[in-house]
Amino acid sequence: MDKRNIRIQKLQNKMKEKNLDYYLIPTSDFHNSEYVGEYFQVREYYSGFTGSNGSLLISEEAAFLWTDGRYFVQADKELAGSGIKLMKMGEKGVPAIADFLAEKTEKLILGFDGRVLSAAYVEKIVKKKKNITIAAEEDYAGNLWEDRPTLSCQKAYELPLEYAGETVSKKLQKVREEMKKQQADFLFISKLDDIMWLYNIRGEDVSCNPVALCFALVTEKEAFLFIQNQAVDEKLSSYLEVEQIQTFPYESVYEYLEKSVSGIGIAPASDTNYRAYRILMNQNRLVDASVNDSPIPLLKAVKNKKEIANIKEYFLLDSVCVCKFMYWLKTTTEKLDELKVAKYLDDLRSTVKDFKGLSFPTISAYGENAAMMHYEACEDSYAGIEKKGFLLVDSGGQYLGATTDVTRTFAMGCLSREEMRFFTLVAMGMLRLQNAVFLEGCTGRNLDILARLPLWEQGIDYKCGTGHGVGCFLNVHEGPHSIRWRYDKDAEETILKPGMTVTDEPGVYFAGHFGIRTENTLLVVDKEENEDGHFLCFESLTFVPIDLDAIDLSVMEKKDIRLLNEYHRNVNEKIAPFLTKEEQMWLADATREI
Amino acid sequence: MDKRNIRIQKLQNKMKEKNLDYYLIPTSDFHNSEYVGEYFQVREYYSGFTGSNGSLLISEEAAFLWTDGRYFVQADKELAGSGIKLMKMGEKGVPAIADFLAEKTEKLILGFDGRVLSAAYVEKIVKKKKNITIAAEEDYAGNLWEDRPTLSCQKAYELPLEYAGETVSKKLQKVREEMKKQQADFLFISKLDDIMWLYNIRGEDVSCNPVALCFALVTEKEAFLFIQNQAVDEKLSSYLEVEQIQTFPYESVYEYLEKSVSGIGIAPASDTNYRAYRILMNQNRLVDASVNDSPIPLLKAVKNKKEIANIKEYFLLDSVCVCKFMYWLKTTTEKLDELKVAKYLDDLRSTVKDFKGLSFPTISAYGENAAMMHYEACEDSYAGIEKKGFLLVDSGGQYLGATTDVTRTFAMGCLSREEMRFFTLVAMGMLRLQNAVFLEGCTGRNLDILARLPLWEQGIDYKCGTGHGVGCFLNVHEGPHSIRWRYDKDAEETILKPGMTVTDEPGVYFAGHFGIRTENTLLVVDKEENEDGHFLCFESLTFVPIDLDAIDLSVMEKKDIRLLNEYHRNVNEKIAPFLTKEEQMWLADATREI
Repeated sequence: MDKRNIRIQKLQNKMKEKNLDYYLIPTSDFHNSEYVGEYFQVREYYSGFTGSNGSLLISEEAAFLWTDGRYFVQADKELAGSGIKLMKMGEKGVPAIADFLAEKTEKLILGFDGRVLSAAYVEKIVKKKKNITIAAEEDYAGNLWEDRPTLSCQKAYELPLEYAGETVSKKLQKVREEMKKQQADFLFISKLDDIMWLYNIRGEDVSCNPVALCFALVTEKEAFLFIQNQAVDEKLSSYLEVEQIQTFPYESVYEYLEKSVSGIGIAPASDTNYRAYRILMNQNRLVDASVNDSPIPLLKAVKNKKEIANIKEYFLLDSVCVCKFMYWLKTTTEKLDELKVAKYLDDLRSTVKDFKGLSFPTISAYGENAAMMHYEACEDSYAGIEKKGFLLVDSGGQYLGATTDVTRTFAMGCLSREEMRFFTLVAMGMLRLQNAVFLEGCTGRNLDILARLPLWEQGIDYKCGTGHGVGCFLNVHEGPHSIRWRYDKDAEETILKPGMTVTDEPGVYFAGHFGIRTENTLLVVDKEENEDGHFLCFESLTFVPIDLDAIDLSVMEKKDIRLLNEYHRNVNEKIAPFLTKEEQMWLADATREI
Repeated sequence: MDKRNIRIQKLQNKMKEKNLDYYLIPTSDFHNSEYVGEYFQVREYYSGFTGSNGSLLISEEAAFLWTDGRYFVQADKELAGSGIKLMKMGEKGVPAIADFLAEKTEKLILGFDGRVLSAAYVEKIVKKKKNITIAAEEDYAGNLWEDRPTLSCQKAYELPLEYAGETVSKKLQKVREEMKKQQADFLFISKLDDIMWLYNIRGEDVSCNPVALCFALVTEKEAFLFIQNQAVDEKLSSYLEVEQIQTFPYESVYEYLEKSVSGIGIAPASDTNYRAYRILMNQNRLVDASVNDSPIPLLKAVKNKKEIANIKEYFLLDSVCVCKFMYWLKTTTEKLDELKVAKYLDDLRSTVKDFKGLSFPTISAYGENAAMMHYEACEDSYAGIEKKGFLLVDSGGQYLGATTDVTRTFAMGCLSREEMRFFTLVAMGMLRLQNAVFLEGCTGRNLDILARLPLWEQGIDYKCGTGHGVGCFLNVHEGPHSIRWRYDKDAEETILKPGMTVTDEPGVYFAGHFGIRTENTLLVVDKEENEDGHFLCFESLTFVPIDLDAIDLSVMEKKDIRLLNEYHRNVNEKIAPFLTKEEQMWLADATREI
């Protein structure tokens, strides 16, 4: 018998004992983080499915795994022999989990660990399925996991003021002003990067995100941090004391909320886990919950002067790496493959001062692999690179002073006319958005079409957003702003402000053929203020050539050519001083005027 | 003593008698119409101010008139000697009426005619000024008006199906389906164009809008029309009977609502007058109110096949008039002035078949007058036209099959380099938007920047929307969609759908110098549907040359030149067959390839 069946059966026995009709095992930690550590791989333990996104639902007699299009093939393979039914998200006739439950007419009891689902997620289920009872007090699935890895507990540390740019007390003051406006007595914070930003600390508990597992609570006079004891050394402990941040054990947060917190508070339902949210709801009146209710994402998104200075410096050093990588890629005679080139780039980055790891696993995707937006080459499966077609490399680093994100698509040899045409349209869209001039008051929805129109004119859409905010030595995907086009009347949009960073990454993805993406990270800056208003524009933080070998001049307007030449002139000026003679000669050619 | 003082004093005596602290006289009819008839010029009677926008607020001992920037000079002049204080809307330190009242700390009783203010407007006042009592039962100001003109009561008439394109019963069915979705027992309709559309009737009670004064009520099984008896002749009466629309006297609507309507209903607070709304609120539970709650604006905005066919035909005939006008303007040797050219164009339009009047008073603005967005030349004040600079003409007609709206700016002789540059940038913006390709799901906010960017790049903004919906033989300004850029989280946006019409009218307005606007009316049409989605684009309904005498080729991209040439080729093809030989020769030159 498959070991997964044994595991699932044990859980089903427990469910029977506890009278649970269904048990849900998502892929999530206690903080709704983008990456989850080994401790939280419960779904993989029961299903054998290793993809980064998947939810396992166990019933009395069956098991279902929901995952998205990226993982259909892999999940099919990995689920073989387990008897688990694959639920292909987004396919016709495949209900979402909430709808799947809502379709059952009988009364149901649904079990899950109340700490690994957000309150907003559970709310959605309960709204759709009226006669459902939630049993979320115990981690039954996790408790039955033999040899479960321990919770990550790396040392957290202070981020010095030369990087943070603003004192904790100043940040707390701003947060409390916003709390006052919302008439809130307390703010409960679950989002790890929000806590890191507020307290000027960093950690290493989540892959690619420099964050420590913790919770925070801010009241009118006090500030609290709930963190694992072992994560706090003496140095951090005395720093927290100086900053008057009271520390309590990580595990004690629920008890603390229950016993010591009352009044009106803010706890965004999409970030806060169900257990914590329920406790707060029971004894407080929470301010109407949405991600924007917490004042921190917006404060964090507008980078301060020191942060901006650092961001510019580290983005330049990061761009130098990518330029050196491009030089090597374009001139080496070695036989290449996806893994080898990713390693070469990662190694280059690791030599940069204050390097603290990758901001996400490097995407190195050749040929048709690049058409999969979240493709990841791995030891078991990767492609060799031939002397033709495109290699797409999307990568970024974590440095004490910045988090970077850049994508370039490289011509590895001869290209089809179609490949060149679409590469050029993507570059045009990227540059047009980068050079936008706009009045303060615009959100990403006003600007998205500048990047997308060259493709829409061809009847092509890249089906994802054009850009996302970027943290400052924090998460590479950071809200609340973004550059997207789709209207959602329930989602509040965020106005772009000077000091925000945002990516600009249009692309073309032809399944089975090729993929192209060109991505710069931009900084919103002032342009001019006159009687017609306050005009803003972008400054590129990224300085890496756009591969001229793939440019088809005939599809560009005069202006597109001018923008490309201007950008390349800047790249050459900024990057050349960091290069060897050979690299400089190559760069001069790679950024030549066309 | 100024006769206005006598009038105001009489009203103040009445206020004293009735214990009113303030009395508000807006410029509005019972339906929040864009134009108001003579009967509703109460504000003018008391203040002497003749502008189209103004609200008079009378206190025990003083009087205040609010109006907007268009009318500051005129109001200053017209109010002289009246003692009425001019409140310049939008100027620093000038509170809006609601804020002006909110600033008073004492308890207040505010009087007004409850039929001439929308419920939404009153709600805003009451929200800001907590201790206020509303006395809206009597039209005290109107009742004191000696020799008040009578309420307009023109004959209403059926719009034949060959123009309406869809039967009343089909429309009622759609409306009732939407009511059902909102679980509404009834829909109360105050917006006159909504009622005209629903019942396939038209009228002549409001200037430029082909509508009759009336109210309507729709329930699950019945349909009602409250209209002046004299407005309904036998023909209309039997039509209404056939369509099973029950008619009641216009004045009886309030009594009817009070006595015969109950249940849950829809009555948008921004369209419904305060008196009617209060009655409905008192005895029903109204569905949460916003303009989008009524299903009619969206249904009306998507034109049906017959309407689209007619719109194309009448827009073409209308364009022919403007082309003939342009020919005359560019070739005549007469001495011209603003009034003369407006009359020439209006006369041309009046010869078109099924002409039913202008869709708004023609704007004919020369030189610096064109910098005033809503300038209207009149017998007392108009400019002569010299052989230099720009003449801006914004005009439109009402025809049985369409309502048109078109603006062209004409070079009347030599131009400065600046004038030519900005004219060209405006034309580029207009053409870029007109040629947009976009996925279904876009609203006007996604597209606005296409028209505006060429000006934003110069640090210039035209400070108004880029486009508005257009009725079909109805109001020239029609919602719910529009093309604007500014984000308002409380306003629901409307997705652009095939069959919607919308204007595209960027401009440049340099106070004291010149004004430029170029406006086509566009139709949203299907482009293609593929795996990436449903792509839409626009088709121009307007075919009038963009004055090549004002084009500065050096600021255009290749593509802009191509778009202009393509558009002009179309103009020549479509319009030439309707012209004389001389006009044809002129048009061929006016639309020549550049």
